[in-house]
This record gives sequence, structure tokens and C-alpha cells, in this order.
Amino acid sequence: MGKRVIVVGGDAAGMSAASQARRANPGLEVVVLERGHHVSYGACGIPALIAGDIAAPEALVALTPPAVAARGIELRTDCEVVELRPAARQVVVRGGGTWRYDYLVLATGAAAVRPAWAGENPANVVTVRSLQDGIDLRRWVDSAGGRRAVVIGAGPLGLELAEALARRGVDVSLVARAKQLLSGFEAPDVEAVTAALTAVGVRPLLGRTVASLRCAAGRVAAVVTDQGEVGADLVVLALGVRPASELAARAGLPLGAAGGLVVNDRMRTATPGVFAAGDCVEVPHVVTGERVFAPLALTANRTGRVAGDNLAADSLGRASSQRFRGTAGSLIAQVAGFTIAGVGLNAAQATAAGFTVAVLSREYHSRAAYYPGGRPLRLRIVVDRHTRRLLGAQMVGEEGVAGRIDVFAAALHGRLTVDDVYHLDLPYSPPYGPVYDPVIDICGRASLEL
Amino acid sequence: MGKRVIVVGGDAAGMSAASQARRANPGLEVVVLERGHHVSYGACGIPALIAGDIAAPEALVALTPPAVAARGIELRTDCEVVELRPAARQVVVRGGGTWRYDYLVLATGAAAVRPAWAGENPANVVTVRSLQDGIDLRRWVDSAGGRRAVVIGAGPLGLELAEALARRGVDVSLVARAKQLLSGFEAPDVEAVTAALTAVGVRPLLGRTVASLRCAAGRVAAVVTDQGEVGADLVVLALGVRPASELAARAGLPLGAAGGLVVNDRMRTATPGVFAAGDCVEVPHVVTGERVFAPLALTANRTGRVAGDNLAADSLGRASSQRFRGTAGSLIAQVAGFTIAGVGLNAAQATAAGFTVAVLSREYHSRAAYYPGGRPLRLRIVVDRHTRRLLGAQMVGEEGVAGRIDVFAAALHGRLTVDDVYHLDLPYSPPYGPVYDPVIDICGRASLEL
Repeated sequence: MGKRVIVVGGDAAGMSAASQARRANPGLEVVVLERGHHVSYGACGIPALIAGDIAAPEALVALTPPAVAARGIELRTDCEVVELRPAARQVVVRGGGTWRYDYLVLATGAAAVRPAWAGENPANVVTVRSLQDGIDLRRWVDSAGGRRAVVIGAGPLGLELAEALARRGVDVSLVARAKQLLSGFEAPDVEAVTAALTAVGVRPLLGRTVASLRCAAGRVAAVVTDQGEVGADLVVLALGVRPASELAARAGLPLGAAGGLVVNDRMRTATPGVFAAGDCVEVPHVVTGERVFAPLALTANRTGRVAGDNLAADSLGRASSQRFRGTAGSLIAQVAGFTIAGVGLNAAQATAAGFTVAVLSREYHSRAAYYPGGRPLRLRIVVDRHTRRLLGAQMVGEEGVAGRIDVFAAALHGRLTVDDVYHLDLPYSPPYGPVYDPVIDICGRASLEL
Repeated sequence: MGKRVIVVGGDAAGMSAASQARRANPGLEVVVLERGHHVSYGACGIPALIAGDIAAPEALVALTPPAVAARGIELRTDCEVVELRPAARQVVVRGGGTWRYDYLVLATGAAAVRPAWAGENPANVVTVRSLQDGIDLRRWVDSAGGRRAVVIGAGPLGLELAEALARRGVDVSLVARAKQLLSGFEAPDVEAVTAALTAVGVRPLLGRTVASLRCAAGRVAAVVTDQGEVGADLVVLALGVRPASELAARAGLPLGAAGGLVVNDRMRTATPGVFAAGDCVEVPHVVTGERVFAPLALTANRTGRVAGDNLAADSLGRASSQRFRGTAGSLIAQVAGFTIAGVGLNAAQATAAGFTVAVLSREYHSRAAYYPGGRPLRLRIVVDRHTRRLLGAQMVGEEGVAGRIDVFAAALHGRLTVDDVYHLDLPYSPPYGPVYDPVIDICGRASLEL
């Protein structure tokens, strides 16, 4: 009989690990234990589901249970693992059943941050993390039940959800402690986004600290802030996520400084037979080399694939060629007609990481100056003064951001200097940019100034 | 008195050289001699001028004569240099005047190819190279004079012009010897473009050889092909360009295999005091290292700047840090709603350059599969089988081509392998692409297959 792989968690990382394990060694028995009801869904599409741009939740499901079965993977949904017994190579599921494993993949993902003031789970205070969360929120929007939502948190997910709700006619307040949207970006870069989000009907209430929730009959009636109450039929918490690593921690697996599991570049933990992948692990940052928590879809998919390939190779007594090379913290989001993107480190992160930074920022046009239809494009780069190496880039605009930001991602991986990027022969045509593309121009300016 | 710089040619390369020379050494006397009437114009915008997307030709002029004067540059338009006397450090202009120089920059550009059958310059057989050419063609379109145009040549400029004319209501035939549009691309990649161009009113007549032009009263009445005549009120020749290097050749300056001037990476010729830049020179290709003719706007601007900086530094007894690092032959064009882009070598070029190539091609979507509004995106990469290094990429689609192709340009400059590109952390969000972006996915497939 073949060796058994137990995968805990059936989303991006878990299903990638399971699929790759079976692909690389079809003799493996692969079992995925998923606490929820859905597996392998595109969580990043949930705002579009809320907005109604995507009609049915099923569209977000990448792998249906029959497709999983066709890959030779045994899937158990609504099956929560409550204990790991690494010494015995067993996991215990809710209800008391145990599963023995030869290889274990922990892909428990991330959990939404829920501050203490959010209280004892009132029914109308929600987080949006799982597909079920998305389905529930969409149902709330589709019903005529409540018309006032308060979104707390001004990161990308908060903005996407706020916009989606506003576009469905909900009265939306966006409450955040920061004085601006998207605190990882510089204030001038996101001013136009704030205006555009307001224009689609979101009321930004920035620079406000939430003190508590005022409840009545087990439901929140208002969010109490240091600057007054904001009435609410629904409160959406969008305060970020943290690694869901408690299960592993309880079993004695070590966590890193960011709270994620510690793995090597093959996604192997120090515990025999145990791999981990996705949002529950810490991964190296390509710029700093430091281990960071980077809950991003591509990293989850990739680290899952690496885990699956490596355990399969191990089961065959071989070595896998697959390693994970790192994250650049790459982010892109569409908000109120704007594209907001960042790769690598912003100025504060770079300074904290010990670099002596130079920051250049400039407003460009997305097309040649004379070509009609161009839109402003704000670009900011962070450069190491000593080595002239690019450390990060941020871009905000209504056109020409996606793709262009990718050049900076490539530059970070290749450890390119601003001089290198200035010399890139990027294709030019007036509908797509000026002769000296913003990417080239800003690096040319840095090249001269540094 | 300061040293004198004579720049022959006042478009992208010449004006870049002149401006940079003055910037780097304000003590230089800089004179630009331009044969035509306009300087420093965006030739790539001419199709948009024909189409009427740009209202006035002046919009294409980047530097007006007063702006040139404000940079301390003496500009002589309608002033053709007819002879170089490098031994005497003089140039001779039409009419017989001579100018002495300390530094000479040859920026004579490229000339449209005009085959023998195009004959003795009938008034209605035109090429579109200078701004004046564009103004004349626009005037023809604006008048109700002729309604049938035959565009000969199916490269990017031919297609852009054909589309522009069709959109203005002209009856347009597009005649080309090749059996497909854009012969640098593979046929399946451009099929949809052909259909789209037909839909905007262009009649593609492919696989036809032009034998002659049938004239009446000094004007062409029809293009005679091996498959019959095509009636024409106007014939537009779009058969490519060649280096305009005759002036230099007559003075004994050596030309390279592609017919362009030979320069080093500082844009210096072997002749004392003589620099050259722009379309009239050969430049190194970043993939092969070979000297090639690459008549591209960015290369012209950049090599001009390098020439100006180096001669200015020389005049100050210093060394310039500016060198030209090479072209990737990068191309992008908008045709009938499609974006067509290529960087580096196609399969035939790579094979001819001595590489053992692997080619991967695949159709993707521009957005996540479940996200509405995505469009097909065709992607093709050319890889060196031995080193796994990327040699080139081509992309065609209605969305998501610009920018995405830039990653491949960066990969070529950085000599990245398909494994390197597979590992890039490109930002992901459903409106902009799938989790494994096409760029990543195709390189991942190559990584597995090679």
C-alpha cells in the first residue's frame, strides 16, 4: 500500500500541494481535510461577487469535488482537524477520529483579525475571508434587510468591499484609524482614489479610532468611535489577517516572529514528515531575505506546489528541483476605477530594514503626451543609496499600472539597479506611453541624482 | 570662443544629442542643421494624425523652434548637408555654404524603402516617414479628392496607416507579398488581427507580388500585381526603412553589414570628432550582441543623448558615464483594437543566430477566468534549449499586452532563464490576470518541458 499524505486545509496552498503530490507520485494516497464546505476557490474574487459583477459563487470555485476526485485526491469537507500528534504521525479531527499520515501538509491559511472590541460574535459583525463569508455577505446585499454598512479598515480588501457594497446601493461608511486610505502607500499617491471612492458613494471616516460597538438585542446598532457613533445594519471587519498557525503551535511546532510556521525553501518544517505552505507559513522576502508573513494568492499556490512536489520526491527517494524563491510582497487592487499596485519595500519598510533609502516620485501620463485618452499615473520608487539597487515601487493610476508594475517585480528579483532599469528597451508606441516610459524615466532620474 | 558642435538631422537622435551636449557643457556652440521643415516630432503619432485622433500636426512637435532656442541651440531648418569633409572638419550645405565643427553628430535617420517599380516619383505614390509626409497624407484624407488607397506592406506602419485611412472612410486595400500580416509574428498569432482589420474596412490582399504601377498622366491609376490590378487614387508604400547613411558613406565612413554607421557604445565613430546616433547607426542587440539596424524611437532618443553627453564630456576633458547598452528590437503597435508586441528574437531569428531554440505558445485570458470582460491573449516565447535563457517573446491580444511584454524585455536584459521568470512574484488581482499570470505560467511550462 502507498504512503499516505494528509493535507490540512483545502484552499490554494492545500489543493496545490495535494494535486502536485499526486502528479509527481501517483502512488501516493492523498487526503485533504477541509474544515469548511468549499475548496479551491478564488477568494480574491469575493468583492466582485458582492458587487454582482460575478453572478454565482460557483464561478469562484476552481476545483469542484468531482474534479478533485478525478485527480485521485480524497476530499473530506466540513472536517476540522483539532489536534496534531507529530510523534505518532496522526491528526485528530473534530468528533474524535484520527488519521495516520506519512506526510502531513499544513495549509491552514490565515484568519481575519478580530479585535477585542468586536465582542462576542454579534450576528451582524462579519469578516470576509472564506467563500462562505462572501456568499453570506452577498445574500445580505441581495436581500433588502439592511441598508447601512460600516466597513472598518482601509486596506485593499476594505476598499474593494466598500466599493462593492456602495455600487449595490448600500449606504457605506469606511472607518479607519489611519488618516488616509492604504497606509502602505504615501498620502499624495492615494488622494485621487479617496475622491473616486467617495464619488461611488463610500463615506470615508478616516483618522477615527473605534472604541466599541453599541449593541441592541444581540446585534450591533452602531460603531462607537472617538469622534461619534456611526449607525450600522452591518459591520464588516477588514483589519487584515494573521497566520492561522494555532493548531501547529499547540503541537509544539515553532513559529517565526510574524507568527507563521517556520519552513525551509522546500516548505519542510523541522518536524519529520511535516510540510507547510500558504498563508500559515513565513516566507523569505526577495529584497531583505527576512522571513515575512505574505498572505498572497500566488505565494500560497506556489508554496503548495513546492510542498507537494518535495514530499512526493521524498516518497520516491529522490530530490525535487522545486524550491520557493521568495515573495516581493506584490500587491495590486482595483478601487473605484483606479489601479493601485506595489512591489517590494516602501520607504518606511526599507528604512526599517536598515537601508539608506532614496525615494523618487513623479506624476506621469499613461500615454504619449499628445495621444488622446491618457490618464495621470503616479509612480514612486525606493532605491538603496549605497548600491543603487531598486528596493520597491508603487504605482497608482486609472490606466497603465498593471503590467508596468511587473517590470519592477522583475527588477527586484534580478537585483537590478536604477541604471539597469533605465537602460531597458521597453517597447514604445504612443497609445501605451511616452518614448521614455515612466518606468525608464524615473530610474533615469534616479540614476542622475544618486 | 567655445567649441562648435554640428548636428546633422533634427529629429529624435539629433535633438537629443544637441540638448544633452548643451546641458552637459553650456559652453558649447551647438548648431542643428535639418533638411526638412520640422524638428523633434513624434513620428509614431502620424497614424493617429491621419485617423483624426490627433487634431493638429503641431501636437506631434515635441520641441518648437523657440523651445530649441531656449536650450541655447542654433537651429537651421530647410538646410540640407550635402557633403562631409572629415579631414577638414567641415560640412557643406546645399547652396555651397560650409560649417566648421569640432564635434559632428550624424543623426540622418532612416529612409523609407522605395522599390524600383515605384518609378519616377509619381505624385500619388507616397511614403510616410517625416511629419511633412503625415501632414500631406492627412490633407489628402481631409479633401474629398481620392477615395481609394492601396497600402503596400503589412508591417506595423502599413497596418496602422491602413486602419487610419479606413476609419476615415477611405476604401483601403492592403497589398503584401507575405501570406500573413506582420511577418515577424507567427501566423496563428495574428489571425484575429487580420479579421479585425477587415472588420474596420481594410481589404487584405496578401500573398501578392507587386509587378508595377499603371500610370496615366503622371499619376498612378492602379497597382499591378501577379494576381491582377488594384485601382488606386493613392499608393502608400510601407515597405520598411533603411539607414540613411549615404552622406557618411560618401565621405568614407565605414558602414556595417546592415548598412548603418559603425559606432562604439559611446556613439563615437572611428573618425576623429565624429559621433553618430539614431536610425543611421547599427547598435548591439542585447540577446545576440550582434550589431543590428533597429530604427526605434527610444533607441534614437537614447543614442542621441549618449552621443551628446560623450562629446560634451570630451570637450571638457572628462569621461562620460553614459553608454548605450543595446536594443532588444522591442516593438508594440495598436491595430484594429489589438495590441501586438514583441521583444528579442523570434524563432527564425534565434535559429539564424545559432541558438537551439524551444518555442512555447499558448492562449491565455487577460483576466482571471471567472472575472468578466477578459479577452484572449496569445503568448509565445523563444528559449535557448541549452541555457534555458529567454531569447524573445511575442504577445497579441485586445487587453493586457502592454506592460506584460515589458517583463520579457527586462528578462532579456537581465539574461533571465525561464526558471527565473517562473519564480517572479508578479502582483495578482482577478481584474488583471489569473493567479499564475500568463508570463509566469508559460515560463513554468517551459521550465518543466526543457
